[in-house]
Amino acid sequence: MRLRFIFPSLDFSCAVCVDIDGLWLIVKYMLNYQSDLDLAFQALADPTRRAMMERLALGPASVSELAKPLPMSLPAVMLHLKVLEESGLVKSEKAGRVRTCRVDPKALSLAERWIAERRQMWERNLDRLGAFLDQTKPESEE
Amino acid sequence: MRLRFIFPSLDFSCAVCVDIDGLWLIVKYMLNYQSDLDLAFQALADPTRRAMMERLALGPASVSELAKPLPMSLPAVMLHLKVLEESGLVKSEKAGRVRTCRVDPKALSLAERWIAERRQMWERNLDRLGAFLDQTKPESEE
Repeated sequence: MRLRFIFPSLDFSCAVCVDIDGLWLIVKYMLNYQSDLDLAFQALADPTRRAMMERLALGPASVSELAKPLPMSLPAVMLHLKVLEESGLVKSEKAGRVRTCRVDPKALSLAERWIAERRQMWERNLDRLGAFLDQTKPESEE
Repeated sequence: MRLRFIFPSLDFSCAVCVDIDGLWLIVKYMLNYQSDLDLAFQALADPTRRAMMERLALGPASVSELAKPLPMSLPAVMLHLKVLEESGLVKSEKAGRVRTCRVDPKALSLAERWIAERRQMWERNLDRLGAFLDQTKPESEE
């Protein structure tokens, strides 16, 4: 019951077909998924890091291009970049002396999907409640 | 230029039509929007709070219903609930001795929209780059 509460989207009806190794793999996947979401939302909770994501959404940029409009030192920008890279939202590679950063859309999609699924579940349940109230409305009110 | 970097989606072409009070209102709105997003992403960065949101996406619940499957004390659950309420993601109201919690989809939509817009910007820029590379491909490669 506890697992069903924490992971309502997991289909438990097929659990009997999965051996202990398979089950361990599923749990490991879910825990990684949790931790990926922790890191992605944590990274997006800061306005400087969101400003850096806004810039990178327009296309790849070097670290100094990213830092230029921000009211802080280059080492501070590098720390924010580290958080973005650890969350998987941004990838960077060095060519010569220039490190170029780009958005990795995978982690962004993961966070977007999590929110969208919760919102859709909530809206579906609101619709069901509306339909139920319509059906049970006393005839005199119609 | 700095403002355009931080808020690329704001249309600066109409700035001349806006007086100082209007401009102040826009800046105030953008700062509130930043802070709303900070709080929403911060609230979603914790697996316990996401588990509470998963439960609430299925429909309203009392605090004790929310706390029941979670491996922590009621006061700890109340603290997580406080973070969710302060972020605007959850609303609660007390009737008699029971406090009922429900999702407020507005803050959820705000966070979802921010991510979706960044992802779409990135994809549009990737498409443009693809089209540019197709156009500039040497004829011998076709």
